[in-house]
Amino acid sequence: MDRPTLPKGTRDFGPAVMAKRQFIFKTIRGVFERYGFLPLETPAMENLSTLTGKYGDEGDQLLFKVLNSGDYLKEIDPNLLAGRDSRQLTPHIAEKGLKYDLTVPFARYVVMNRHEITFPFKRYQIQPVWRADRPQKGRYREFYQCDADVIGTDSLICEAEIILMIRDVFEKLGITGYTIKINHRGVLAGLAAITGANGNEGALFVAIDKLDKIGEPGVREELSAKGFSAEGIEALFQVLHAAGSNENKITLLRSKLGAEEKAARSVKDLEQVFGLVKELGGGEAPVELDIALARGLSYYTGCIFEVKIDKASVGSVSGGGRYDNLTAVFDSKERSSGVGFSFGVDRLYDAMEELKLFPEEVQQSTQALVCHLDEACMRYGLHVLRTLRAKGIAAEIYPDVVKVKKQLEYADKKKIPIAIVIGSEEMKSGVLAVKQLKTGEQHLKTLDQLIAELTASEKP
Amino acid sequence: MDRPTLPKGTRDFGPAVMAKRQFIFKTIRGVFERYGFLPLETPAMENLSTLTGKYGDEGDQLLFKVLNSGDYLKEIDPNLLAGRDSRQLTPHIAEKGLKYDLTVPFARYVVMNRHEITFPFKRYQIQPVWRADRPQKGRYREFYQCDADVIGTDSLICEAEIILMIRDVFEKLGITGYTIKINHRGVLAGLAAITGANGNEGALFVAIDKLDKIGEPGVREELSAKGFSAEGIEALFQVLHAAGSNENKITLLRSKLGAEEKAARSVKDLEQVFGLVKELGGGEAPVELDIALARGLSYYTGCIFEVKIDKASVGSVSGGGRYDNLTAVFDSKERSSGVGFSFGVDRLYDAMEELKLFPEEVQQSTQALVCHLDEACMRYGLHVLRTLRAKGIAAEIYPDVVKVKKQLEYADKKKIPIAIVIGSEEMKSGVLAVKQLKTGEQHLKTLDQLIAELTASEKP
Repeated sequence: MDRPTLPKGTRDFGPAVMAKRQFIFKTIRGVFERYGFLPLETPAMENLSTLTGKYGDEGDQLLFKVLNSGDYLKEIDPNLLAGRDSRQLTPHIAEKGLKYDLTVPFARYVVMNRHEITFPFKRYQIQPVWRADRPQKGRYREFYQCDADVIGTDSLICEAEIILMIRDVFEKLGITGYTIKINHRGVLAGLAAITGANGNEGALFVAIDKLDKIGEPGVREELSAKGFSAEGIEALFQVLHAAGSNENKITLLRSKLGAEEKAARSVKDLEQVFGLVKELGGGEAPVELDIALARGLSYYTGCIFEVKIDKASVGSVSGGGRYDNLTAVFDSKERSSGVGFSFGVDRLYDAMEELKLFPEEVQQSTQALVCHLDEACMRYGLHVLRTLRAKGIAAEIYPDVVKVKKQLEYADKKKIPIAIVIGSEEMKSGVLAVKQLKTGEQHLKTLDQLIAELTASEKP
Repeated sequence: MDRPTLPKGTRDFGPAVMAKRQFIFKTIRGVFERYGFLPLETPAMENLSTLTGKYGDEGDQLLFKVLNSGDYLKEIDPNLLAGRDSRQLTPHIAEKGLKYDLTVPFARYVVMNRHEITFPFKRYQIQPVWRADRPQKGRYREFYQCDADVIGTDSLICEAEIILMIRDVFEKLGITGYTIKINHRGVLAGLAAITGANGNEGALFVAIDKLDKIGEPGVREELSAKGFSAEGIEALFQVLHAAGSNENKITLLRSKLGAEEKAARSVKDLEQVFGLVKELGGGEAPVELDIALARGLSYYTGCIFEVKIDKASVGSVSGGGRYDNLTAVFDSKERSSGVGFSFGVDRLYDAMEELKLFPEEVQQSTQALVCHLDEACMRYGLHVLRTLRAKGIAAEIYPDVVKVKKQLEYADKKKIPIAIVIGSEEMKSGVLAVKQLKTGEQHLKTLDQLIAELTASEKP
């Protein structure tokens, strides 16, 4: 039989990786819950009618489709089969697909349950999604998303709390150098107006979003090529040149865009968000008003966010924004404002590995291994084990009578920090030989002493 | 646009249900980890070559298959299409499927990673699986399994620890009346020998497994019909009649089956497991040797388990057993003994609902809601909120200026136990009006007093 393999773009997460991933998930979940967000889970499979048309043509191509059960060809028109056109056949043999993101299923949930939901509805969702993308470094066909959204209020407190949640998560993960970039779709609309982008906003936003990558000359060139006037480009860069504190930028934006009512309101929104962040105790959060931040998703209508870790090579690890009509894709009468954001767990993981930020304790699970010299010692060890566990200490016994060296290797590989070695001496005296795997040091301790030490140094 | 729906047999888990499900998951995970089991996650999709042939013909039919991406019909032989035979076409247009259980992917993981794994390998896995079963009450097309397995040792300490883990999980969930049934495949083989079932063991085990449902007369009738001799059936029931304590049953089994070496060894195994359970502090666990317990899965070779909750109508909520050659399906040279068990989370959930066992605290998430009479009070409330969260208290503020009644309704529906109502009086004095939503009682407290109370009554 052939050696089994994994489908490409998918991964197993073994214990060592899982321990670190769970640290990230637990941290994010803890912060979400501290801010009043409640968990939601939706199925892996959705009807294709729910998913199709929500992610553009390219997105539709990247949906994994699930073959109908039973004799799915039975009712198929033979002419359709003879045509051998995959695109035409698919809707007839596959009604379900794997979810592509968490947002569309969330919108579907809200529409289906609007009469039972208490608004404003604060939900978080941590689940895998699937995309039939070409796999490459850092891009997988199955990966987790961690979303939090508030729907049913346009209060800017929600925007401020997103900034605070990002700060709290990063603080708990031990990530220090990072930037929370913020902008507003209304500011972008204002830029479009002064640039004279009438009807050509898309090209403008695509170009300025590249400012980081291709620099000012590159952006100027691209805009010229797209037909923007020299005066327009000049006016644009007078705003994009805004430097200094967020307050300075706000002042500049007010003077340059203040004439347009919508842009003026957006600048005021941003100012209010900065104020609310301070009042909520986040004055030190590294928030930066980035006038060139555009973000691709077309459904954003208000503030938009993006987070980068300074020294990591992974790109943005979190992003989001406000939308006015997320649920309208399912029900045009259903227009409730909401704001949400998402953490990219795989990128956070990669960044934390790169910067060596995972605390060592995270990788331990079992706190102590009971080792033994023979059958009788093993039986004695069962009583030690039972006492440790009764005190809530994660402990195990090596289940077979083998050389102590092998038992210690097991502890070492499993990153168990402490081995309790039981020989006839220990059985007689009741005093245990406690070995620290890391240093090799060994000390004699009573079981009570050991328990006191282990319960004092709880896992994070 | 049509109102969106869910694929049949799948479910959304809204916040109220999620809170209870997370309580179950967290409890099981906590116990698994206290016993030294480490987490593993495998992808939702596996190659169909990994899954097919592992669950029998019926199982193969129940696999969800994922359509190949791109132009999957391009290379298909037109004659194959013309045949309109779904079964024949499927392998050509679908290479991947959704996993059907956690055991086969686990075996695949062990075979693929045998050189990196430290044996004995204790892993747990809590993930959804998918089966294209006809949906009905309590049976879903997507559901979670919670498995724990030790692979690479035949130590009976593992069997004893499974019993202890079941006891610990049930204790923490608050489930009291339940029975852990245990038997041994070797005992069943012994029964087959004295019944004269030579070559007809399957029919025998199917029949005695029904003892609970159809009673002794029913089983006798079925066995007669299947051609078992009257003497054989008599000899069988002399053993199945064994009553009283596990010790009594062991004594009977030893006298009736002791002549067969394999059966005698199995009886000794069971005796040892009972002894180990006692030594590990589980003397009071409701373990019952059930000589008629057979369990369907053919790969079991040693002890087998099944757990039922006395007063619940859901059937068995946990089960498992020892196997000798799980990985042999992928590599015939790979024969390592293991033992595992699984909790059925949906059934545990249903049983706990039926018996009203979910603690009320589980359903709370946010501990306090900050309410306010106007814009100024809301801003003051932000400072209260920030202080509560800094102390690790899950708190939120109603984000819009609306009537207090509406804010309190929000708290009530979200099961937030405490509302802090801020008016101009409270802003002046700094003394807060703290309302208990459940009783309607309201008391004046300083923020420090409130924090002291809330941090004293931590969530479970």
